[in-house]
Parts: sequence; C-alpha cells; structure tokens
Amino acid sequence: MSNQNIKLAKYAGFCYGVKRAVETAKKIKLDNPEKNIYILGELIHNMDVINELDSLGIKTIYEIPEKGDGICIIRSHGEPPEVFEKVKNAGFELVDLTCPDVKKVQQKAIELAQNDYFVIIVGKSNHPEVIAIKANAELYSSNVAVATSVDELKSIEDSIKAHRKVGIVVQTTQMVSTLNDIVGYINTIAKEVLIHNTICNSTAMRQKEAQEMAKDSDLMVVVGSKKSANTTHLAEILNNCTKTVHIENDKELNSDIFKNAQNIGITAGASTPEKIINNVVNKIKGGK
Amino acid sequence: MSNQNIKLAKYAGFCYGVKRAVETAKKIKLDNPEKNIYILGELIHNMDVINELDSLGIKTIYEIPEKGDGICIIRSHGEPPEVFEKVKNAGFELVDLTCPDVKKVQQKAIELAQNDYFVIIVGKSNHPEVIAIKANAELYSSNVAVATSVDELKSIEDSIKAHRKVGIVVQTTQMVSTLNDIVGYINTIAKEVLIHNTICNSTAMRQKEAQEMAKDSDLMVVVGSKKSANTTHLAEILNNCTKTVHIENDKELNSDIFKNAQNIGITAGASTPEKIINNVVNKIKGGK
Repeated sequence: MSNQNIKLAKYAGFCYGVKRAVETAKKIKLDNPEKNIYILGELIHNMDVINELDSLGIKTIYEIPEKGDGICIIRSHGEPPEVFEKVKNAGFELVDLTCPDVKKVQQKAIELAQNDYFVIIVGKSNHPEVIAIKANAELYSSNVAVATSVDELKSIEDSIKAHRKVGIVVQTTQMVSTLNDIVGYINTIAKEVLIHNTICNSTAMRQKEAQEMAKDSDLMVVVGSKKSANTTHLAEILNNCTKTVHIENDKELNSDIFKNAQNIGITAGASTPEKIINNVVNKIKGGK
Repeated sequence: MSNQNIKLAKYAGFCYGVKRAVETAKKIKLDNPEKNIYILGELIHNMDVINELDSLGIKTIYEIPEKGDGICIIRSHGEPPEVFEKVKNAGFELVDLTCPDVKKVQQKAIELAQNDYFVIIVGKSNHPEVIAIKANAELYSSNVAVATSVDELKSIEDSIKAHRKVGIVVQTTQMVSTLNDIVGYINTIAKEVLIHNTICNSTAMRQKEAQEMAKDSDLMVVVGSKKSANTTHLAEILNNCTKTVHIENDKELNSDIFKNAQNIGITAGASTPEKIINNVVNKIKGGK
C-alpha cells in the first residue's frame, strides 16, 4: 500500500538490563576462553539469543549439578539466596548479572519485611524475578504474598487486616493498572500502605511511548516472545488503544494484517533482539 | 403498603466525635453556669442542634473578637494553629474538642511533611477539617496540596514528579473511591507513595453497612444535611447501588417515594440527631 506510514518505537527491544546481561556473558567467555561458562536458566526469552550464546560456548543449564567447574552466571531476573549458595557450593565461580533495577526491588522488599510491613509483591507467582524477590523478603518475614489480582488476596484478607501496615513492591515489567487494582483493594482493608512502584523506567517508557504511538496508528505490531511477560503486557495495553497484533517474528506476519493499515506503529519487548525487529520492519515496508 | 420491611442502620446518626463534642459542650456549660461559653463555627451541620445549644447558653460565633472572656470551644473539625493562638490572645479560655480521629490525620500530615514527603490531602479545599490539616502540615513544608480529583493535581505534576516521595492523608469522611482515584494517578508519576488511609472507622463502617443494606433494599433513605460532606458521600455511594433519596428531615419525605418500595433501608450522616432520624422512621412506618 502506498503512502503507508511505518514508525518504529524508540524504546523497542532490549532494555538496559538485558543488553548488559548478553554483552557481559559474551565478554566473560572472551576473557576466559579456557573455562566452562554456564547461564542458569534462559538469559532472555528468545531462542535465537540462547542458540547464539550456545554457539559461542555459553551453555544454558536448567539445574545446578552437584559438582561443577567454571563460571555460572545468574541471569538478569535474579535468583533466591539459596540458589546463590547452591551454585557456590557446587564449586562454580558465580557471576551475578541480576538487573540493577531488579536488585532494587529485592532491596525494597527486604526493607519492608524488616520494618514489619505485610509485603505484597505485584507479579505472577511463577515468574523467576518474583520467586527471587519473594525469597529475599522471606528471609526477614513470613508475611509475604504475591498477586496480580484482588482475588488472589481475598483468602488472606484477615491476616492483612490484622497487620494494618502493608508494603507493596512491583515486578519490574508489570502494568501500573495491575498495581492500582491491588492498591485500591488494600486501601479498603489497611490503614497504612507504603508503595514502592518498582516498575522499571525501561518498561514505563516503553509502555508510555507505545500508547502515544497507538493514538496515531490504526495498527500496532508488537514483536517478541509470547512467553515474555513484558511483551505480553505491552500487547495487552495496546489492545485497549487500537488494533494490535502480537507476533514472535516476521514469519508470523501475514500481509492481510497490514495491507489496509495507513499508519503502522511497531514496538518490541525487552527480550526481542534487534535483528528480529528489523526483519519485521523490512517485511512491512516491503509490503509482502 | 403492607408487608413493607423497614430497616434502620446500626451506624446511623451521630458518630463518636460529634457525640463527644455535643455532650462535652453541654457539660462545660453545666459546670460553668456563670461563664460565657462560645463555639467557634457550627459544632455540627444541624440547625436544631445549634439552636438547642444556643438556648442552653452556648453561643455559636463565626469570628474571633479582638477581646473576649469566658470559654471558647474548638469544634470537632479542628482549626489551624494560628486560630488557637488568636482565641487565646483574645483572652478566651480554650477548650479543644477536635475529634481524636481528626487529630490523628493532622499528626500523620505533620509526620509526612517532616519526613520530606510531598503531602496530598484528599478532601475538599474549603472543608474546615481540611483547612486545619493543611495548616498543620504547612508548618513543616510548603509542598502540600489538596484534591478530590486528579484534575486538581495535573497543574503541579512536575513538582510532584521532582519530589518522588508522595505522602497521602484523607479527610475523615471521604470516600475510599476518591482516595483510589488519586493514588492511581500518583502511582504513574511517583516512585514512593505512603498512604495513611485516615477515613475514620465511623465513616467506613457507616458506608460499608449502608452498602450491605442496599443489596437487599429497593429504596435507601439517607437522612441529614445537604451541607454535610459525609451525608452527601453516603447518598452518592448508595446511588450507585440502588434507588436512593437524600432528605434533611421527615418534611421532605413524600409518600410517593416509598409507597411502592418493599424493602426500605434508612441511614443517616454523622451530624444527624436521633430525633430527626426517628421522625423519618415513624413517618415511613406510618405510611403517610
């Protein structure tokens, strides 16, 4: 279609924490060519990147062996303190690439627990980042809960009420609307609520920019893994603004989707490599 | 209409703070029959009560004279610190009947100001209670704002953002939904938000009970002054649940309103005297 306006978001793709983790992992291998290098869990939700790292000799492992040698990298999501111990006890040299923004959430959760707040972590309980935040807070208090909806907190309403002081932290890639739903409920049952809005700037800027773009677009294309929480949230937010498609890569891009669109905005999650984004942009520009 | 169910709320009428103020004012006059007794401002939003106090020799004054004698009562809403000074400087003996729940809001606002929070008071800026809370916080900080809507804060968004730490207190008879609107907005612009939900228990219980009653009622009757903030909020909340009428007294009660209702719930604001509530109940029961 002629005269189509195609705009790529400034904040599309790798965030600071992911960029840092991928680059540092590569540098570690370069500096230590003779050593085994492992990453515990997928560094990011993208198989292209995992495979590229693998080809460079940086192996992804999903369990900590009883005995190991070489370097084991803690990925940007962070890990519970006991995992750090296990990695060291197995004989690995540990390199911690937990994102500094995620470290801040862990620190705030610990502070809240130490100061006798009932700690609520806004996030999905099976998200690796959330598991690590929770484990850190639980070193100091047993009053720690995880939720992305009010329903998940109803069963512990009495124990929250008894506590009176509630502290809230947020998994870095959550939506502020999810935080607000939880706070709205907590305000009806607690007298003091201390919120640390730890949604990271990268996520906040990415979501804000995409929403601005959606105002002038009749189609928004979100590129990234469907397993990635931040990419899925982005698509969810945009769906409320304009027609939105969420694709993992250019192969999923059907020309029927975009041929009738005049103004197309493209954005991508924090774990989407530049190459994949560029392929999508080129395919849309090519109109194929 | 036969088989009509008429239910009066347990938490209808005078709250603890109002009861305390009215009773203490009367006791002061009894104990000091020879002294002039003044109340600065209307003790509660009800002319029957003001007139009754007047007939007992407890005069309502709206300004502080330059010179005075006798006892001057500070009403349950509280007053700014400079008013306390003026009353004493005029020569009055001061009796402070500020509601203990209101004193708590003032104290929390002061603490927030002292601890470098940008202080937001959720309430109407011309409400006497809010004026006193604000004046107290402003002794310690110039970063104090009052709002019941997000629009009122938009013009100071930059200065709130620059502050990062925001502390929120709530005028005792506000609605939690108003608090939640403000917090939802603040969460998008501040990293740390400390909420003291200072809506008083009396207001919270009254609103909660009335909402429960509304579920089983095809008509809710709210009795109390239309100048009273807590009574107006009560009617507003109930309007979202079922058919609701807000009347000042039984004279406003038109039998057309209630003759077709099967289940009628009656509640009343914190400044509504028992006699007025009883007149309404009796008129509805009488079906006139």
